[in-house]
Amino acid sequence: MPAAVRRPATRILFPLYPGVTHLDFTGPHQIFSRLPGASVRAASLAGADIEGDGLVFTHLDHLEDIEACDVICVPGGLGCTAAMNDTAFVGEIRRLARGATYITSVCTGSLILGAAGLLKGRRAACHWAWRDLLPLFGAIPDESRVARDGNIITGGGVTAGLDFALTLVAELRGAETAQAIQLSLEYAPAPPFDAGRPDQAPPNILARVQALQAPAVGRRAQAALAAARL
Amino acid sequence: MPAAVRRPATRILFPLYPGVTHLDFTGPHQIFSRLPGASVRAASLAGADIEGDGLVFTHLDHLEDIEACDVICVPGGLGCTAAMNDTAFVGEIRRLARGATYITSVCTGSLILGAAGLLKGRRAACHWAWRDLLPLFGAIPDESRVARDGNIITGGGVTAGLDFALTLVAELRGAETAQAIQLSLEYAPAPPFDAGRPDQAPPNILARVQALQAPAVGRRAQAALAAARL
Repeated sequence: MPAAVRRPATRILFPLYPGVTHLDFTGPHQIFSRLPGASVRAASLAGADIEGDGLVFTHLDHLEDIEACDVICVPGGLGCTAAMNDTAFVGEIRRLARGATYITSVCTGSLILGAAGLLKGRRAACHWAWRDLLPLFGAIPDESRVARDGNIITGGGVTAGLDFALTLVAELRGAETAQAIQLSLEYAPAPPFDAGRPDQAPPNILARVQALQAPAVGRRAQAALAAARL
Repeated sequence: MPAAVRRPATRILFPLYPGVTHLDFTGPHQIFSRLPGASVRAASLAGADIEGDGLVFTHLDHLEDIEACDVICVPGGLGCTAAMNDTAFVGEIRRLARGATYITSVCTGSLILGAAGLLKGRRAACHWAWRDLLPLFGAIPDESRVARDGNIITGGGVTAGLDFALTLVAELRGAETAQAIQLSLEYAPAPPFDAGRPDQAPPNILARVQALQAPAVGRRAQAALAAARL
């Protein structure tokens, strides 16, 4: 095929920050890495190495140097509260999202989209334990695993990133391409337990996870601080 | 609790190699990173940075310097055929597996376990498109998403690593801990399509994925080469 008629690559970007939950982006990244005609990049402020849950990612692009992207996908993580108060990081998200065809996130990444002022009056998904913070940014919490509001497509907590990414692939290239990637990654999930959502988990398990999250209690104040900048 | 009665950490090790499919290990790694009392490490020969599908992992441990681990988990990937013919890498897998309580893998990682001589007469899972290579190493292919044969626990293709890891967490710390981690990662999968296994995917999708994999046709010869060393 002559270069002149070749479709330009779909530019997919994951902006990373310290304390990201790595599966929030490695799941979608793996799916997008199999998408024909896509260029997938991961970037951080100044291209700094990024640590998340014990894995360190290097050779990242400089977020500031990226001119534009078609899809921006912001992952979540415990570091999201610091990220949403990092005005340089949030500024880059805002700049790149404004030129993007799709503005997306996984998990608490939607709170960072919120801090960038991108979710006012829009429905968005989020990790179940953090979803109640979305209204601070004028967003409407959506309990769906993958929520869509116009060009904003957001996934719920962590593993929802896989379902989100396949949904986006179908949007970008059609259902058959999404199914082919699903088959190549053998995504026929069979969890050994049925405890993945608060309404599915036994009450004692829910209480245990909520107790574990108690140390993150300062997050509301930090999110409010970020929201106050809007 | 005084140090004397503290249970020693469960040492979980991911040996990495170039061309690993990153989700094969990032999925289980994310799950194990939430396991109380576990020390999770990723290592490579000489601690070299490892690239997989466009992501580069750094600050890895030196595989040769790791004295022992309780769980060894070998991920798969297109690089597995080179890895199973890398006698230094396979030698480290063999050494560490012999001292491990659990010998495990995700996806085509089971072929590397096979090349290390660890699967003779044992049932093992593998990515559906590569499963037929297991008998080269004396292993018995198992179509289960998570297969168990004694202390050998193996997952099927890529995303099976999530189900594998929760299964292993339940084995190590009980069902409640596994359920708590499942809830914290919101693992209530809802794939938008039902095409994750060859028997589920439409025939044209299966044919398309098989055609994409044709360039990897040399893999059988490479696997046979590795098997000849046993």
